[in-house]
Amino acid sequence: MANPLIPDELIDFLLDDVLGLDRVLALPAFAAHTRETCALFLDSARRVARGVLFPAYEEMNRDLPRFADGRVHLHPRMGGLYRQIVDLGILSASRPEEVGGAMLPMTVTAAGSAYLMAANLGVVAIAGLTTGAARLIESFGDRDLRDRFMTRMYAGEWSGTMALTEPQAGSSLSDVQTRAAPQPDGSYRIRGTKIFISGGEQDITDNIVHLTLARIDGAPDGIKGVSLFAIPKLREEQDRLVDNDVACTSVFKKIGWKALPSVQLAFGERGDCRGWLVGQPHQGIRHMFQMMNDARLMVGLNGIASASVAYQEALGYARDRPQGRPLSARDPSAPQIPIIEHADVRRMLLRQKAIVEGGLGLLLRAATLTDMAEHATDPREREEAALLLDLLIPVAKTFPAEYGFEANTLAIQVHGGYGYTSEFLAEAWWRDQKLNSIHEGTSGIQAMDLLGRKAVARGGEPLRLFARAVGETLAAARALGDDTHAALGAALDDLVRTTTALGMKGMSGDADAMLRHAADYMDAFSIIAIAWQLLAHAVAAGRGGRRPAALYQGATRACDYWFATELPHVAVTLERIRSGEASFAEAPLDCF
Amino acid sequence: MANPLIPDELIDFLLDDVLGLDRVLALPAFAAHTRETCALFLDSARRVARGVLFPAYEEMNRDLPRFADGRVHLHPRMGGLYRQIVDLGILSASRPEEVGGAMLPMTVTAAGSAYLMAANLGVVAIAGLTTGAARLIESFGDRDLRDRFMTRMYAGEWSGTMALTEPQAGSSLSDVQTRAAPQPDGSYRIRGTKIFISGGEQDITDNIVHLTLARIDGAPDGIKGVSLFAIPKLREEQDRLVDNDVACTSVFKKIGWKALPSVQLAFGERGDCRGWLVGQPHQGIRHMFQMMNDARLMVGLNGIASASVAYQEALGYARDRPQGRPLSARDPSAPQIPIIEHADVRRMLLRQKAIVEGGLGLLLRAATLTDMAEHATDPREREEAALLLDLLIPVAKTFPAEYGFEANTLAIQVHGGYGYTSEFLAEAWWRDQKLNSIHEGTSGIQAMDLLGRKAVARGGEPLRLFARAVGETLAAARALGDDTHAALGAALDDLVRTTTALGMKGMSGDADAMLRHAADYMDAFSIIAIAWQLLAHAVAAGRGGRRPAALYQGATRACDYWFATELPHVAVTLERIRSGEASFAEAPLDCF
Repeated sequence: MANPLIPDELIDFLLDDVLGLDRVLALPAFAAHTRETCALFLDSARRVARGVLFPAYEEMNRDLPRFADGRVHLHPRMGGLYRQIVDLGILSASRPEEVGGAMLPMTVTAAGSAYLMAANLGVVAIAGLTTGAARLIESFGDRDLRDRFMTRMYAGEWSGTMALTEPQAGSSLSDVQTRAAPQPDGSYRIRGTKIFISGGEQDITDNIVHLTLARIDGAPDGIKGVSLFAIPKLREEQDRLVDNDVACTSVFKKIGWKALPSVQLAFGERGDCRGWLVGQPHQGIRHMFQMMNDARLMVGLNGIASASVAYQEALGYARDRPQGRPLSARDPSAPQIPIIEHADVRRMLLRQKAIVEGGLGLLLRAATLTDMAEHATDPREREEAALLLDLLIPVAKTFPAEYGFEANTLAIQVHGGYGYTSEFLAEAWWRDQKLNSIHEGTSGIQAMDLLGRKAVARGGEPLRLFARAVGETLAAARALGDDTHAALGAALDDLVRTTTALGMKGMSGDADAMLRHAADYMDAFSIIAIAWQLLAHAVAAGRGGRRPAALYQGATRACDYWFATELPHVAVTLERIRSGEASFAEAPLDCF
Repeated sequence: MANPLIPDELIDFLLDDVLGLDRVLALPAFAAHTRETCALFLDSARRVARGVLFPAYEEMNRDLPRFADGRVHLHPRMGGLYRQIVDLGILSASRPEEVGGAMLPMTVTAAGSAYLMAANLGVVAIAGLTTGAARLIESFGDRDLRDRFMTRMYAGEWSGTMALTEPQAGSSLSDVQTRAAPQPDGSYRIRGTKIFISGGEQDITDNIVHLTLARIDGAPDGIKGVSLFAIPKLREEQDRLVDNDVACTSVFKKIGWKALPSVQLAFGERGDCRGWLVGQPHQGIRHMFQMMNDARLMVGLNGIASASVAYQEALGYARDRPQGRPLSARDPSAPQIPIIEHADVRRMLLRQKAIVEGGLGLLLRAATLTDMAEHATDPREREEAALLLDLLIPVAKTFPAEYGFEANTLAIQVHGGYGYTSEFLAEAWWRDQKLNSIHEGTSGIQAMDLLGRKAVARGGEPLRLFARAVGETLAAARALGDDTHAALGAALDDLVRTTTALGMKGMSGDADAMLRHAADYMDAFSIIAIAWQLLAHAVAAGRGGRRPAALYQGATRACDYWFATELPHVAVTLERIRSGEASFAEAPLDCF
């Protein structure tokens, strides 16, 4: 059986039975859409994902882009594939009609993107980066910038990138040193070096627009002196595109995402690179952060997509591969059984399933919150959705990166010795997945964001909204006569108590003590968030309906597994966090 | 600073202060050796590892062996490097003098091997496989086989392999189908296919001897009909080496261990392949198992070595790489600090350190037990050492594979974006490491071996010996006035209680219920075993001595970290195991 990437019935179950897509579609903003138009979009995405993108993945993972004379030549199939997803309308599917978009709910476009990502990450990433860059111009650029750049980007003619990282700065964006000198015509002369720019050079679009952080001459030090610029590879002069002195000086030898080059860019080596300010001077980080939620959701979705396609592959292998016999078997000449019948293989499969489905539920819920935050008619509902979304973003980015990676590792293990070869695809997705704990803010940075900013924001309001949402799911379970999930409520109380205790340390001025165990806090929070999702799935399954019984069974088993296996560890972790345990934080530097 | 692979002072600390190498050297079997001769061997191993093997690793990881016309051509440097480790005497360092060995304690040769493995795994693996194959002939072969094969293998002229796996059987050795037909001259005509044969074809030795499992015509089905054969690539006829009809039909595209090809071998495609029976007919699995302990220890040591070299690399990077500022810093123009000063980086480093040092302690302890099991003068001491060793082997194989892999993943993470490129070595060791959960018995198989066989052997005698050993370390801690480690005793009691409960299920005939959570049992056992090691290190550090204070501090911190972070989770895991939680085991097959 062909790898489904993600089962259609699972997506439909999550959208309709768990998340309530009908409530989203009832919003006036989405008046142009019905469940049927959403289904059309999803069906198109599925068709392109399975029929077009996925069959090309293996080849594009093997035959790498070529770099010669400062130019990157992508895989010969890339241009055609990219055109296909552009034709799907993916670049502006959730943007309003006035910028050429289809104004579909993010809930739906996220689900569609998940198929495409699972099929062929590198192709979709160019689209995702382009949308992200175009949205920055849409949100903060003036009319001129929108006309010159955004329109062509949403049309798929030009692509976009995010150019943040510099060699000496890495994650420390306050140390950005790229310079921007104002010119009489309102543009800026740019000079600097950026690294790890995904899609920073390629040959499938007519131009590339780099949304770049740089410092205007005379700007203050630190984060408050960083501005955002649109810097095209080719700039327009008298209706011609001319070289804008953006040089691709090297291509990183990445361990995954093989189809999508990540490059080093040198802006203005010849002193002739022009950029245009996007938004306000010195507000670059703030502007960028406003788009960061979307970018981090996309990374989370990448992570779940990579885990899902690998899980489905491992599942197919486990059903087909005969090896060994039941423990009770006595006859060595009896036929071998498929390995899915061995308990430990099932353990590895159910663990993958719980991670994939819990993570997918969380990502789609975040997409729904995005829709509500932007388009709910009640301002209070918009605000609450935005606060809860902000809280969940670092979790929705990190859980897939960390636990999804574990799922990908298990997919290799299910394949046994063959999993260790590139003749099977499990290892390719495993390599792809590893990036997700690093880019768009490392897991460590996400953890600091969650605990240091989000969980303690507004006197704990986002956390109270989280507790309320989890409480609603618990109440729904009880309404079905299910009292077995009380442990989730206890874990949640424990999380709130721990957050308060840590917040007090922060308030007293000891940020180090507050954030020492941020990574552990992220882990505990993630386990609770996923328990919430999986319980919501089990509740929907418990209500029943017209879907296959196996889907309901699967949702229940995944929930049972997570509650039995992961949730009981939360109390142990939270207790340690509260204890302030200092083995690593206070270890002398020479003792490592 | 150059990567030390493993710090010398750590090895000396473990050998002398923790394991008591002097007690091993006091055994009559090692009368030829002193601590000084051991130091000479270790110094040579360190010199070759650091000066010769390690500088070649990067290149050999990049420029792969070539396969053409049925021949595999290894990296051009491989022959010379292999000669250097042969000259070290590594092939027979721990073998008796009558077979040309140096009769060094395994405790010492394991430590030496760890350096070599950390430096360049692929080179050392050819030696390890050759020693393992030669030892099978030494133990079970007759005079003729020893003269013809073993002598040349220990001399480094010929290499050896283990040829177990077949395409249709995988881990299920009872399904081996390679056939052996008796010939009038006492040899057997062999026909069959083997896969995943590491070093199964190469061009650096004059010949290769494949220690191969096959079925003599008319043998019973299953495991009890499998015999062991020595099958050379070239056989001697009238003092000439002629082709023995062993064809290398393909080379697997492995994701790591790039310097060491793993191949498919076809024996007897032309009907002209001869093999010689090693040991008794139908006893092949038993003979092979007798060597399995050594092989699994080697894999465990590979795992720790790969984790150690990566940890040292990440540590060096973290000390050198400036990025960001302390949380309390207010001045964005202040210089950046090395990332080792960030709490989360230290967390990742101390976790790696605890895994590496705990694992290394366990592996060297297993080596010491091997020495005692073979050479202690008191028969009771020999027997007890053998029982405890048998129990610890699956843990010593699996902990490095699973937790070591996590350590390798953290080493990538410490490198940030650079960790995701093959311009740094972290990712190469990460790929190397992944094999260790798969070969020589997957982690799943090790877990079944631990719980289903070892822990319940002889009415629980090995587990009682384990408890006694852990109890001695706890008593030593108390003797130093340290009462803070009682949690280890409680965890141990819990493990024993759980084992008894599971053993009862097994006795009642329900092997499925007994072994359902074997993987979790392995995890809990591993955490306890490593807590034991790290406590032993901390106790030795607490006694103090002439080593650097930072080493003692480090040992104490690693122990504190493990006791605070890992040990408290054991009770949760064991409780779940005892509950018989059945989410995955009893899930219907169609619900995945």
